[in-house]
Amino acid sequence: MKLTILGCYSATPRANAHTTAQVLEIKNHYFLIDCGEGTQRQLRRYKISFSRIKHIFISHLHGDHVYGLIGFISSMGLLHREKELHVHGPKGIKKLILTQLKLSESYTPFPLYFHELTQTQPEVIFEDDKVTVENIPLDHRIYTNGYLFKEKPSDRKLLIEKAKAYDIDVALYNNIKKGKDIRLDSGVLLKNEELTADPPPPKSYAFCSDTAYKPDIVSQIKGVTALYHEATFQEDHSDLCDYTKHSTAKQAARIAEMAQVGKLILGHYSGRYSSLSGFLEEAKSIFSKTALAEDGKVFKI
Amino acid sequence: MKLTILGCYSATPRANAHTTAQVLEIKNHYFLIDCGEGTQRQLRRYKISFSRIKHIFISHLHGDHVYGLIGFISSMGLLHREKELHVHGPKGIKKLILTQLKLSESYTPFPLYFHELTQTQPEVIFEDDKVTVENIPLDHRIYTNGYLFKEKPSDRKLLIEKAKAYDIDVALYNNIKKGKDIRLDSGVLLKNEELTADPPPPKSYAFCSDTAYKPDIVSQIKGVTALYHEATFQEDHSDLCDYTKHSTAKQAARIAEMAQVGKLILGHYSGRYSSLSGFLEEAKSIFSKTALAEDGKVFKI
Repeated sequence: MKLTILGCYSATPRANAHTTAQVLEIKNHYFLIDCGEGTQRQLRRYKISFSRIKHIFISHLHGDHVYGLIGFISSMGLLHREKELHVHGPKGIKKLILTQLKLSESYTPFPLYFHELTQTQPEVIFEDDKVTVENIPLDHRIYTNGYLFKEKPSDRKLLIEKAKAYDIDVALYNNIKKGKDIRLDSGVLLKNEELTADPPPPKSYAFCSDTAYKPDIVSQIKGVTALYHEATFQEDHSDLCDYTKHSTAKQAARIAEMAQVGKLILGHYSGRYSSLSGFLEEAKSIFSKTALAEDGKVFKI
Repeated sequence: MKLTILGCYSATPRANAHTTAQVLEIKNHYFLIDCGEGTQRQLRRYKISFSRIKHIFISHLHGDHVYGLIGFISSMGLLHREKELHVHGPKGIKKLILTQLKLSESYTPFPLYFHELTQTQPEVIFEDDKVTVENIPLDHRIYTNGYLFKEKPSDRKLLIEKAKAYDIDVALYNNIKKGKDIRLDSGVLLKNEELTADPPPPKSYAFCSDTAYKPDIVSQIKGVTALYHEATFQEDHSDLCDYTKHSTAKQAARIAEMAQVGKLILGHYSGRYSSLSGFLEEAKSIFSKTALAEDGKVFKI
């Protein structure tokens, strides 16, 4: 699992501070998460192929998370994309994009599907044979979801030398990987555990931005391999959290601590801080396995 | 008069190629002309204050000319702008922006005025005591206007030494600058030409993008100090002009030649050309006073 941060600053893009967008590579999927203005330029900069992105997940309709979406969609039209594209996001996102396409008398030469969310409880919103994605209801000034990406458990790992030693037909290998026991020609039953090892534990990634401190989410994201949690402010500005519905680095760390996550990644920094070190220090005082998102940074999870 | 090119490439923004946007400084105005995605970052990069921009002129509603407008407007809200902002552009531009503001549950803390254009003939669309702006109807796939910015003639230049020699009351200086003759106490009439010199000729700038070759515009832009004319293609791709309603560098030069402009600036280059030199050569073969727009380039006109 590989996470590329395309932008991790809040509010207004600045010369060297891009607004929220990231790409999660998971089981051969390239999921684009949020799409602030300039995301398509960032994708090119970090050499991520537009065409590999088939699903986009938008947390909410504030500009710093979505103003780059129309440009990305339009450019894929100009680049003659044919593959379908799915946009998951709050109700209204379809109108947002289609109004702009219509006014520019443009259309997309590829099928464009919108999956609008209105639920206030977690649900599985995407699933295939390798991955599930759930929405994580968050607490912001506007309807907002985070997203939880989970690998499905892999097949069991076939101990190939053992299988050969028992002279097992290759045609049965798939059943063994699925956990089945095997009866040999001699009539002996081989338990699956003898032929296989546990697969690597499935990985998971939770994206939680933007949100006020919301301990409710802990049960859903318990034990995730990595959590991205917004940290717009440091504690010296915690008074702004109530009104703006954002979190401090310390609050993000508290969530990580309660959820016992493998790693906490901070982001969505307010532009008022000239350095990011304060965010890291503050969070690490509560949860040591914390890292800072930075534009262009890649996390191998 | 100073023109800063923020972006001059067509279609899709790339890592080092911004879509159309430019700022014209003229008589203390900062006019923003077109606003492709990423314009607000370019403004910051070239240190042009957001707050100095009071009028924005949008040529047409294709994304590469307008997708940065919502971000620019939103950011000015976040930056607590109070001064009014005027957006001039094709009918539909108000819906384009207000749909996005409403869906993000945002508002602008400053007065935002839309001046929607539908006319197919040139008209004065903005005027104050120093400057006029006219629309230039262009020929593109969608309703499009270029814009003609003209300084109004300055006052005549008072020859101060002569005025002193005749012992003329300072209170009369303003009348003299306005072109009035003066009767001295002795009864002698001094003709204005004796006391003044011609002011510098008023400057003018025509922005023409996007458009097919349209000789109709020549009469309106005759003799402008500088003309920015799109040159999406070179002659080797002139077959694409009919369908896309764009121009070649040679066609842009023909317009410049016919209109006897002071300087031709080319832009809106297609991404298919790896170098810009072909545009320049082609245009110069017809009109020698040609220059290339480039992102970040400043023209003193």
